[in-house]
Amino acid sequence: MVRVGILGATGYTALELIKILLRHPQVKITAVTSRQEGSPALSSVHPSLSGRIDIRCEDLTPKQVAERCDVAFCCLPHVASMEAVPHLIDGGCRVVDLSADYRLRDAAVYKEWYGHAHSDAGRLATTPYGLPELGTNGFREAPLIANPGCYTSTSILALAPLLANGLIEPTGIVIDAKSGVSGAGRTPKLNTLYSECNESFSAYSVGKHRHQPEIEQVLSDATGKRVDVIFTPHLVPMDRGILCTIYPRLTGKKPDAEILAIYREFYRGKPFVRVVDHIPATKDSAFTNYFDVTVRQNKGQLIVLACLDNLIKGAAGVAVQNFNVMNGFDETTALIV
Amino acid sequence: MVRVGILGATGYTALELIKILLRHPQVKITAVTSRQEGSPALSSVHPSLSGRIDIRCEDLTPKQVAERCDVAFCCLPHVASMEAVPHLIDGGCRVVDLSADYRLRDAAVYKEWYGHAHSDAGRLATTPYGLPELGTNGFREAPLIANPGCYTSTSILALAPLLANGLIEPTGIVIDAKSGVSGAGRTPKLNTLYSECNESFSAYSVGKHRHQPEIEQVLSDATGKRVDVIFTPHLVPMDRGILCTIYPRLTGKKPDAEILAIYREFYRGKPFVRVVDHIPATKDSAFTNYFDVTVRQNKGQLIVLACLDNLIKGAAGVAVQNFNVMNGFDETTALIV
Amino acid sequence: MVRVGILGATGYTALELIKILLRHPQVKITAVTSRQEGSPALSSVHPSLSGRIDIRCEDLTPKQVAERCDVAFCCLPHVASMEAVPHLIDGGCRVVDLSADYRLRDAAVYKEWYGHAHSDAGRLATTPYGLPELGTNGFREAPLIANPGCYTSTSILALAPLLANGLIEPTGIVIDAKSGVSGAGRTPKLNTLYSECNESFSAYSVGKHRHQPEIEQVLSDATGKRVDVIFTPHLVPMDRGILCTIYPRLTGKKPDAEILAIYREFYRGKPFVRVVDHIPATKDSAFTNYFDVTVRQNKGQLIVLACLDNLIKGAAGVAVQNFNVMNGFDETTALIV
Amino acid sequence: MVRVGILGATGYTALELIKILLRHPQVKITAVTSRQEGSPALSSVHPSLSGRIDIRCEDLTPKQVAERCDVAFCCLPHVASMEAVPHLIDGGCRVVDLSADYRLRDAAVYKEWYGHAHSDAGRLATTPYGLPELGTNGFREAPLIANPGCYTSTSILALAPLLANGLIEPTGIVIDAKSGVSGAGRTPKLNTLYSECNESFSAYSVGKHRHQPEIEQVLSDATGKRVDVIFTPHLVPMDRGILCTIYPRLTGKKPDAEILAIYREFYRGKPFVRVVDHIPATKDSAFTNYFDVTVRQNKGQLIVLACLDNLIKGAAGVAVQNFNVMNGFDETTALIV
Repeated sequence: MVRVGILGATGYTALELIKILLRHPQVKITAVTSRQEGSPALSSVHPSLSGRIDIRCEDLTPKQVAERCDVAFCCLPHVASMEAVPHLIDGGCRVVDLSADYRLRDAAVYKEWYGHAHSDAGRLATTPYGLPELGTNGFREAPLIANPGCYTSTSILALAPLLANGLIEPTGIVIDAKSGVSGAGRTPKLNTLYSECNESFSAYSVGKHRHQPEIEQVLSDATGKRVDVIFTPHLVPMDRGILCTIYPRLTGKKPDAEILAIYREFYRGKPFVRVVDHIPATKDSAFTNYFDVTVRQNKGQLIVLACLDNLIKGAAGVAVQNFNVMNGFDETTALIV
Repeated sequence: MVRVGILGATGYTALELIKILLRHPQVKITAVTSRQEGSPALSSVHPSLSGRIDIRCEDLTPKQVAERCDVAFCCLPHVASMEAVPHLIDGGCRVVDLSADYRLRDAAVYKEWYGHAHSDAGRLATTPYGLPELGTNGFREAPLIANPGCYTSTSILALAPLLANGLIEPTGIVIDAKSGVSGAGRTPKLNTLYSECNESFSAYSVGKHRHQPEIEQVLSDATGKRVDVIFTPHLVPMDRGILCTIYPRLTGKKPDAEILAIYREFYRGKPFVRVVDHIPATKDSAFTNYFDVTVRQNKGQLIVLACLDNLIKGAAGVAVQNFNVMNGFDETTALIV
Repeated sequence: MVRVGILGATGYTALELIKILLRHPQVKITAVTSRQEGSPALSSVHPSLSGRIDIRCEDLTPKQVAERCDVAFCCLPHVASMEAVPHLIDGGCRVVDLSADYRLRDAAVYKEWYGHAHSDAGRLATTPYGLPELGTNGFREAPLIANPGCYTSTSILALAPLLANGLIEPTGIVIDAKSGVSGAGRTPKLNTLYSECNESFSAYSVGKHRHQPEIEQVLSDATGKRVDVIFTPHLVPMDRGILCTIYPRLTGKKPDAEILAIYREFYRGKPFVRVVDHIPATKDSAFTNYFDVTVRQNKGQLIVLACLDNLIKGAAGVAVQNFNVMNGFDETTALIV
Repeated sequence: MVRVGILGATGYTALELIKILLRHPQVKITAVTSRQEGSPALSSVHPSLSGRIDIRCEDLTPKQVAERCDVAFCCLPHVASMEAVPHLIDGGCRVVDLSADYRLRDAAVYKEWYGHAHSDAGRLATTPYGLPELGTNGFREAPLIANPGCYTSTSILALAPLLANGLIEPTGIVIDAKSGVSGAGRTPKLNTLYSECNESFSAYSVGKHRHQPEIEQVLSDATGKRVDVIFTPHLVPMDRGILCTIYPRLTGKKPDAEILAIYREFYRGKPFVRVVDHIPATKDSAFTNYFDVTVRQNKGQLIVLACLDNLIKGAAGVAVQNFNVMNGFDETTALIV
């Protein structure tokens, strides 16, 4: 039995994580943290957990968490995360970090996009990026895995087979991305109020979204080419799901069926990737750990359509997938329901 | 031309009010206030007003507003409103107050339900309650009109014809009320986040909602009977609209058609009341100043179904309707689109 | 391994059922039927099943289903169901019927509310009503179980503890019910189009809904009193969930806490009932087999707030719960995720 | 007073059209048609019109409409429209056609994309395309105006200033378009059911949408260059609004502010175009006749963000705008509310 802790348990990702872990046969949740006063019952913070788990949200230090847990899922905001992670690791706890703090390899890039010097830069180069479909080298022994961003997972999984096979130019790739509102978190803000989002659709952070350099880094690393993308995120009036519509330039002519065959070969044996013939809708993968992808062409322009559930395959699901690999469990444990 | 000011211009009700006033041929908006720093353009606070009005949100005192305006619509929260209103009136400005501060006649009841002593109690007894369908006595001269609550308007307009004609018992009336989320305002709060409200339905403030005593007071006053209601509000995952499903006890047998005829007689000549034969949906009156009502019976139990747009007929629309009566304009000016 | 068939596999309930059965360790799905031409793959009818099950929708006779299956879940519309069920049973197949055809004990009541003579009336008196929280007598041997309606489950589970303990009057109980749109099925109709339902809320079938006599029959049977209810359904702009706000008359004074204690005693050991202190939201039980309930009082009027997921606990989930009991499996198998 | 008829009055566009026309001081609605049996009251087809207009939906021939009307708005589906229009014109009625039948200049292109030979091809070359912001030459005398498609209006208005000023390459322009569900019409279909669309986002008709050749034709005509676009439509879970995110290649470097200045110059004096500095949301222009547009750049890639209400500026609103020009009324009559 692995003793597991969750730091920062009040958000949507933490809630999904706890639901998944509750059905994991090898896991016992032994600590959940939050700064809320009075150590409220977790089920009062998340009423959907009523009757399912009897634990309190405590304002624990990383050291205290490390004493109680073998593995910690860190759901803290960036910056807070890199302040906690070294203490967790020093305390003997392995960590899956769901923040952005350990995703970028280069501390200067981190500073540029996150506006904050990295206080644990030494660990950046050696921390595996937790997208298991691209390889799980080092996961088994790693003290820390950097869980990927939701937009980034969608974009990377959609583009990796094309880049790896030289089917597309690595530069100027337009990624028109659309996400449900849960991706924006549970902290009350004007722009995520119901009456602001509902019956509305818009772009945001155009040219400034922090997932752009992450996509570029991971795809460049994975393919050995300098990949550069134009990433435009939009907010969709729904809770769950991301769809990326991606416009790369083909290096040569190839029918859709051949391209799909290349995807299928690339992802052979990957239990959560579904290369489909139909046009996928976010609803098809909502509440699951599946990633759905297909391609179409319009006058020779390739169009990749890719989607996943931002809170599951885009966050909590892939975190448990990483956890499973770290611990030598079957990769799908607790993830197919 | 009436010079008009809006106090507290950042909320949803103020936005609707401004849209209505922009099409009012007798109105010029001369002041809008907010506490936001830097006197932002109104159209930056409400992008839907881009290109429609060129005015800034200023942090004005009530006295300053009174200097610039003949009439002020006060969209401040309760308590803040009763602190501003006396100064507006003293400055020579007439006021339509959209807060709850002048709706209850009895300062003790106000204190009981709002948890705050009333600082302008002297004005409570003489301020007309602005539901013009129940009579507009004194509106023409009043320095101040108390604009009704959204749930209260729906409930009162639904019940008044029945009570006035002795068709129902005045006590134990169950009002099961449902509202869109815009009624909860534009201040960021956890319970009005998109991902909390969307795909969810629940009751709130059961037995504790402040519109309950308001409904009882107005209906008791209007009918001369002590009316008492059981009011249960619910939040619907939509922006606009209120529907009340009301279960009064009939004093005698009467077919639906006769009851509807009594409603039609009661509201004869009222341009915004639609007594309909079909079951009304909130969508039918959304974005309008109409109030829709019908009745059905089930085993002798009368069921009244009533709806309106909470921001228009339930707030900004009726405010302009009151303003029109105050100023001797046609009651429907700017309100039928 | 139990060989299971699903008749009428194209609807939303069938989809949920299949998802649950896919994680059931004792089940193999061996037949799914639909009248669609060309025996389409199930995953083309329900794209969310892509990669999860490799079976076709066939236009099979009940006899053919019975040859392939030990148990059939009948998701056909009413009337179609009672035409298929006898053949399934004759063929040696046990049946959980999700239609309304075997819920009412009295063929005359069936005819009155469904406008159709019952062609298999002989089976009505002996078919258990599948609400396991009220008892599972006879389930283990029954050839057929009548799965309850979604509104009815919510209402019955909310009221049974009160009636059984004599806490409320059995007559004149107002049930103000609200449901997500998935309850209306997957057949294209004007009133369930997105643009009709979205941003709208309304009542429907007032005084005419077929779940009213079902609620009354089951509660009367369960308590030995003639129970009569005023049932008013509403459509909420959301996919999933039912909330019933119920107004019974208390027979005596009793604080909320004592009433909740009676609920907890009544449902002791029932794994899917959560008697909660907070006001439940439909979202808390969405996508689960839980039923959430609490009570409040307003001036002595008891208000019961009860919710569940209409497609799971209100349909497919309770169907599998019944199936588990029929087969001697743990009641919760495949139902806690 | 212009006597106006609406052919095909049961859809969403017709409803919006009627609401606009009801506030038009120069219009009297004298005929509305539909094939529904029994000539139902228009307010029973559209309950939101209760108490607002007293007219029946009749199954009239175009000839009968022409006898009663000076101008007809034709809201019939394509094909049906080109069968009715010649008879309307022959009967002396001027027509604004909201279908796709007279938008394409070339009958062969029509046949290719609509799969149907054009039966009134002679009129294609001489019928003005009704996008008044691009010019209103000939509108004043035209017997027929072809009202543009909703996606096309958005795309064309977004691109015209760039193309006219040679700022972008005319080919390979990626238009990633997103629309609310009302654009799909009011005929019951599986893919527009509430439970299919809600909480889902997907692309559709990729590479096959009929607005693609329409955009190309109008922009090519307007600019004298052969314009070619890659158009990908998506369905957003909301009623109203279109947002197009457009990726053209700049011909040279130019800062955003200069580009916006060119837009402002291009649309000077156009009352419904708002060139904004902020990123527009569909909600800002919902229920209005405004078109909102801005630009951003990301690594030298220009991104145009443009939105409008698909039923108003994208259909019924621009139809009345065209009608106003045809009749010599102020272009904004009945359109600013």
